[in-house]
Amino acid sequence: MAGRRRVFWALEVFRLRASFSPAAGKTYTDEEVIPLNKARLEAFSDGVFAIVITLLILDIKIPDVQPAALPAALVDILPQLLTYILSFFIVGLYWHLHHQVAAQIKLIDEAFIWLNLVWLLFVSVLPFTTALLGRYPLQPIPLTIYGINLILVNVTGFVILVYFRNRPRLRLQPMSSAELRAVAPIYVAVNSLYAVAIGAAWFFPWLSYAIYFFVLLWVTARSIRRVIPAIPDKEGP
Amino acid sequence: MAGRRRVFWALEVFRLRASFSPAAGKTYTDEEVIPLNKARLEAFSDGVFAIVITLLILDIKIPDVQPAALPAALVDILPQLLTYILSFFIVGLYWHLHHQVAAQIKLIDEAFIWLNLVWLLFVSVLPFTTALLGRYPLQPIPLTIYGINLILVNVTGFVILVYFRNRPRLRLQPMSSAELRAVAPIYVAVNSLYAVAIGAAWFFPWLSYAIYFFVLLWVTARSIRRVIPAIPDKEGP
Amino acid sequence: MAGRRRVFWALEVFRLRASFSPAAGKTYTDEEVIPLNKARLEAFSDGVFAIVITLLILDIKIPDVQPAALPAALVDILPQLLTYILSFFIVGLYWHLHHQVAAQIKLIDEAFIWLNLVWLLFVSVLPFTTALLGRYPLQPIPLTIYGINLILVNVTGFVILVYFRNRPRLRLQPMSSAELRAVAPIYVAVNSLYAVAIGAAWFFPWLSYAIYFFVLLWVTARSIRRVIPAIPDKEGP
Amino acid sequence: MAGRRRVFWALEVFRLRASFSPAAGKTYTDEEVIPLNKARLEAFSDGVFAIVITLLILDIKIPDVQPAALPAALVDILPQLLTYILSFFIVGLYWHLHHQVAAQIKLIDEAFIWLNLVWLLFVSVLPFTTALLGRYPLQPIPLTIYGINLILVNVTGFVILVYFRNRPRLRLQPMSSAELRAVAPIYVAVNSLYAVAIGAAWFFPWLSYAIYFFVLLWVTARSIRRVIPAIPDKEGP
Repeated sequence: MAGRRRVFWALEVFRLRASFSPAAGKTYTDEEVIPLNKARLEAFSDGVFAIVITLLILDIKIPDVQPAALPAALVDILPQLLTYILSFFIVGLYWHLHHQVAAQIKLIDEAFIWLNLVWLLFVSVLPFTTALLGRYPLQPIPLTIYGINLILVNVTGFVILVYFRNRPRLRLQPMSSAELRAVAPIYVAVNSLYAVAIGAAWFFPWLSYAIYFFVLLWVTARSIRRVIPAIPDKEGP
Repeated sequence: MAGRRRVFWALEVFRLRASFSPAAGKTYTDEEVIPLNKARLEAFSDGVFAIVITLLILDIKIPDVQPAALPAALVDILPQLLTYILSFFIVGLYWHLHHQVAAQIKLIDEAFIWLNLVWLLFVSVLPFTTALLGRYPLQPIPLTIYGINLILVNVTGFVILVYFRNRPRLRLQPMSSAELRAVAPIYVAVNSLYAVAIGAAWFFPWLSYAIYFFVLLWVTARSIRRVIPAIPDKEGP
Repeated sequence: MAGRRRVFWALEVFRLRASFSPAAGKTYTDEEVIPLNKARLEAFSDGVFAIVITLLILDIKIPDVQPAALPAALVDILPQLLTYILSFFIVGLYWHLHHQVAAQIKLIDEAFIWLNLVWLLFVSVLPFTTALLGRYPLQPIPLTIYGINLILVNVTGFVILVYFRNRPRLRLQPMSSAELRAVAPIYVAVNSLYAVAIGAAWFFPWLSYAIYFFVLLWVTARSIRRVIPAIPDKEGP
Repeated sequence: MAGRRRVFWALEVFRLRASFSPAAGKTYTDEEVIPLNKARLEAFSDGVFAIVITLLILDIKIPDVQPAALPAALVDILPQLLTYILSFFIVGLYWHLHHQVAAQIKLIDEAFIWLNLVWLLFVSVLPFTTALLGRYPLQPIPLTIYGINLILVNVTGFVILVYFRNRPRLRLQPMSSAELRAVAPIYVAVNSLYAVAIGAAWFFPWLSYAIYFFVLLWVTARSIRRVIPAIPDKEGP
C-alpha cells in the first residue's frame, strides 16, 4: 500500500481542485462519462514532443568569428552538442513511454488531460534546462536543475501510471499488482540515480554526466525487449 | 435574447464580407454544402496549440554571466518562470476548450474556418504578450495587454459557441437554451474578473497576478467534472 | 488552350528531371501506380502551415527599454503587428486553399509531392519576408519582395490546379473546363493586383498595404460562399 | 553477403544494448510481439520533418541596417538563401524517403523506434549545419560538416532498409534480393559523391555546392518515376 500512499498527495491536489466544481462529490457512472477524444490528446502530445525534440538544436548558436578562429569556436560548442544528444534521446524516450502508456488506455477523463499537461510542462522545460547546461557545462547549479527536471518528468509519469492502475475502467486491460511491482522499482532506481547525479554535480561534474548517460542507455536497453530477430539469410554466400 | 444581440456585430462582419461574394444572398440546402474536412481543421489547430505551448519556453533567455553570478541571474528569471507556467496552463485550457467545442460539431462551414483562425490568432499572440509580461513583470501596460489578450480569446470562443448554437445542423445534437444559459455566466464572470485584473494592474500588480491565477484554477477545477473515482484497492495491506 | 501553354514550361521542367530516371518515357497504367499516402502528405503540410503561422509572432521582438519608454516602444512595433496580422490570415487562407485542393484529390503521384514541396517552400519563406516588411515598413524593396513571395505562392497553387485538371485519374471527379474558366480569372486578378502593389511600393507604400489587405478581404469573402444561415430563434421574447 | 556484413556492427550495437535487458536472449513469437502504434510513429516523424523544414528559415536573420544599405545587405544573405533552398529540398527528400520506407512496413518493433530516432537526430541537426554553411559559405570546415551530416542520414536510412529486409515479418511484402541490389548502388553512389564534395570543399568550394545540388536533382528525378502523364485535351483549340 506504500505505493498508493506515495501518490496520495498528488491525487488529493486534484480532488481539491475538483471541489471548486459544482459537480464535486458526485460519482459518475460509465454512461455519464463523456468520451473525450483520445486521438486529439495523442496528436497534441506528439506535436509537443516533436517540437521539443526539434527545438533543442536552436539552443546551439552558430559561432560568429573570423574563419581562422572557426575550428576553436566549434570545439567550444562540443559540450553543447553532448547535452543536445543527451536531451534528444531523453525526449525520445519520454515520447516512447507516452506512446506505451497511451497504448493501454481505453478512455481518458478530465483529470488525465491535466496530468498529461503537467507531464508535457516538464518535458517542454527541457530545451531551457538543456541550454543552461550547454552554456555552463561544469557548474553544479545547471546540473542540479537538469536532474530535478528529469525527476519531475519521471514522478509525473509514475503518478499517471498509478492513476490508471486505480481506474481499471479507463484501461483496455486492468494492470495487475505484479505489473506495477515490476515497473515501480525501475522508477525508484532511475530517480535515485538522478539524485546521486545531483549530489555528484557539486563535487565531480563528469560523474554526473556519466550517470545521466548511463541511465539513458540502461532504460533504452530495457525498452528494447521485443526486438524481432533477423532471419538467417538463406541465399548464402 | 441579449446574448444573441451581443454577438450580432460579429456575425454581421461575416455577413458583410460574404456580401462581396457572387453567391451572397443565396441560401444553401444541406445537400449543397460541401463537407469540409473537420479532421484537418483539428490537426491544424492541434498543431498551432502544440507549437504555441512549446514556444513559450523560448522566451526565457539563458543568462549569460560569470558562473559566480549565476544564482542571482537565475533568481532574476523567476518572474518569467511564473508567467511561463501561467500561460502554459492557459494555452492548455484553451486547447481543451477547443477539443470540447469540436467534439460537439458534425459539420464545419467556411465561416467557422475563419472564426477558428481568429481564435488561433489570439492564442498565437500569447507567446508575445507572455514574454512582454515576463520582461516587465510589475508594469501596468504589459499586465493590461495580457488581460486584453485573454478577453479576446474568450470572446472569440463565445462567438463560436453562439455560432454553432444558432446552426443546429452543424452540431451533433442541438444545444438547448438551458445549456447556453449555464455556460454564458461563466464567460461573463471570467471576463469581468479579467477586467478587474486589468484595473488592478495600475495600482496593485500582484492582485492582477492573483486574479489571473485564480481564474485559471477555478476554470480548470470546473473542467474536471467527470473524474473517474479510484477503486478501493481490494488486495489490502 | 492558352491556359495549358502557360503552365507548359513548369511541367517541362518536371519532364526534364524525370528524364534522368531509368523509367523515363515509360507510361504507367493505373495498376502500376503505387498509391502514395495522401494522409501523410496532408499531415506534413498541416504541420508546416501550423508552424509557419505560429512562427510569425517570433519575429516581433520584445522591446528592451526603461519602463518609462515602454509606451513609445510599443507604438514603434505597431507596423510589425499590422504585417503580422496580414501574414497570419494570408497563411490561413493558403492553408484553406490547400485543404480545398486536397479535398478533390483521390490519388497523389510523385510529381505532386514535389509541386507541393515547392508550394510549401514559398509559404515557409513568408515569416522571413514578413519580418523584413515589419522591420522596414515603408521601404519599396521589402514591399516588393513580399509581393513577389505572394505571387510565387499563387502561381505554384495554379500550376497544381492545372496539374490535377490534366490528370482526371488523380481526382475524385474530373474538373470541367467551366470550373477552370471560373477560377483562372481570380488567379489572374489577384496576381495583377499584387503586381500593382509592387509598383505602388516605389511611390505610395500605403497604397501597397491597402491592396494587400483588400486582396485578403476579397479572397476571404469569396471563400465564405457556403455559410450556413442562422436559424431564427423560436424561443424568442 | 557483403551488404549484410556492412551493417553488422550497427545491429551489434543494438544487440549489446539489448543484452542489458532481462529479456535479452529470449526470442519472441509473432503473438508475443506487442503491436506498437505505427500511426503515432508516423505522426511524430512527420512533426519533426515539418518543424525542421520550417525552422530552416529562422536561421536567415533580417538585416538591421540603414534603408540605404538594405540592397547590399540583402545581397549579402544570398548565400544563406542558396543553402536554405538546398536544405529545404534535402529535408523534403528525406521526408519522402521516410514515407516510402513506412509504406512498406506492417509492424514496428522497439529497435526500429530507436533507429528512427537516430535518423531523426541527424535530420534535426540539419538546421544547425545549414546555418553554419550560410554563415561561412566558402569555408572548408562547414562544407565538410554538412557533407558528413548528409552521409550520416543516408547511412542510417540504409541501416533501416537492411533492418526490415532481414525481418520479413515486419514488412507488408518481403523485399527481394534483387530489390536491395537495385537500391544499394544508389546509396553507395550518393555517399561517394558526398565524399568527393567533402574533399573538394578544401580546394574548390563551388564544386562542393555543385555536387550537393547535382545529387539533390538526380535523386529527386529518380524519385519521380511514376508521374501520371497528362491526358491530351480533347476540347481542342
